[in-house]
Amino acid sequence: MSKPASPLVPVTSVPLYAQIKDALRVQILDGTYAPHSQMPSEHELCAMYGVSRITVRQALGDLQKEGLLFKLHGKGTFVSKPKAFQNVSSLQGFAEAMSSMGYEIVNQLRSFRVVEADRNVAARLGLEEGAPVTEIHRVRLLNREPVSLELTWLPEALGTRLANADLVTRDIFLILENDCGVPLGHADVAIDAILADDEIVDALRVEEGSPVLRIDRLTHDAAGTPIDYEHLYFRGDAFQYRFRIDREKAGKSAKHNATRKAR
Amino acid sequence: MSKPASPLVPVTSVPLYAQIKDALRVQILDGTYAPHSQMPSEHELCAMYGVSRITVRQALGDLQKEGLLFKLHGKGTFVSKPKAFQNVSSLQGFAEAMSSMGYEIVNQLRSFRVVEADRNVAARLGLEEGAPVTEIHRVRLLNREPVSLELTWLPEALGTRLANADLVTRDIFLILENDCGVPLGHADVAIDAILADDEIVDALRVEEGSPVLRIDRLTHDAAGTPIDYEHLYFRGDAFQYRFRIDREKAGKSAKHNATRKAR
Repeated sequence: MSKPASPLVPVTSVPLYAQIKDALRVQILDGTYAPHSQMPSEHELCAMYGVSRITVRQALGDLQKEGLLFKLHGKGTFVSKPKAFQNVSSLQGFAEAMSSMGYEIVNQLRSFRVVEADRNVAARLGLEEGAPVTEIHRVRLLNREPVSLELTWLPEALGTRLANADLVTRDIFLILENDCGVPLGHADVAIDAILADDEIVDALRVEEGSPVLRIDRLTHDAAGTPIDYEHLYFRGDAFQYRFRIDREKAGKSAKHNATRKAR
Repeated sequence: MSKPASPLVPVTSVPLYAQIKDALRVQILDGTYAPHSQMPSEHELCAMYGVSRITVRQALGDLQKEGLLFKLHGKGTFVSKPKAFQNVSSLQGFAEAMSSMGYEIVNQLRSFRVVEADRNVAARLGLEEGAPVTEIHRVRLLNREPVSLELTWLPEALGTRLANADLVTRDIFLILENDCGVPLGHADVAIDAILADDEIVDALRVEEGSPVLRIDRLTHDAAGTPIDYEHLYFRGDAFQYRFRIDREKAGKSAKHNATRKAR
């Protein structure tokens, strides 16, 4: 388990924990510590670098916060895989966004059925509670590994038109636009973090209690009618959402407010 | 612990689990089951509704995925508090965004110091590794409850100008714009989900292993120079990021690609 530790610089103003952090980061990024491999224990690192446990813990904690390491309760510290990310500055389906970056996307279709809309789904799609909706469960595979579970609800009239579409390789967005002739407008998105439950554990092959990025997304057609409501669950250890935010007009009015408050 | 269960509709095509889910959702939203209170056990719910454990588990699992309930390992199922959310369609500081919705924001300043930039911070801010940067740790309180831990790094020349600013009630964004005369441009944001580590547990008063929404944000001035790099850690159980995504030009080129592939 022990690997030769890079010697620490003896006389420097850089704190010991930062030197250890930088040394470990180099070894993680150059593959000395490979993705998913277990890191040496805190005890071993103390011995390797000749430092206290608190110093090692601070270095490991920082690397964990950077996303390079993750802890499994009772099992130790492991090296994260490099995260895939989706740029969501414009509305795109997952395959559309990821294949342009060279990833191969395939979907497992877990279920496709007509159900009665529950209160939440009905409210988001502007339907009566109990109205028929098409419900689709898919797992998206990124380079053959499960990365997200997608639950999709569409009004039945639209949903039935997807029954014969190729849901294994195509995005629902592109099927709607190209096969159904429904141009998309915008989506309202809400993001938070939850722990994996049984269905997510099963679908994404993660441990119970793993961190999951949850996306609630309501997509509208170009006329502004809601047509596609989704819950997306992404593996927290394997995926990032990225986007750019501009400081436009909102900045100005806020500035005035702040100035008023400061007086 | 047992509360009177709403009678299930005996003859209907709505599955039992969906009826229980809808009944429980009504009682959560109307406060019968109050935020942070413990739900009846699966066993008790089976008895109350006269259904099997698998039916109850499906109802609870769906409500958990909606964010209305959360599980604590070995302790049971609890009612979530309604989540606060920040609309991030334009670049705003947290207080700026949240106070416009009627929330009171106050910050705990945990530390303010000059440190040597580690490799990651230096790379993001376009500095040499080891260059002096101002490092600020703050906890943001939303209506007096901790909701996020913010680690901020700024080039020292800019950071020192914040030393005497009111970091307890003001956003760094507004101090930069209004006191330092640095107009903000855009930010690059990456979002993922992690589990709370020791520092987050301490700062946000959550249990170890709680889900955390992690935001990596690099803010640029109006000329495009990176000036403010942050790690934001939001309580997964208390907060949402919301925004709108438009299907602009990207949609068109993607459409052409898809059409080509389909041939």
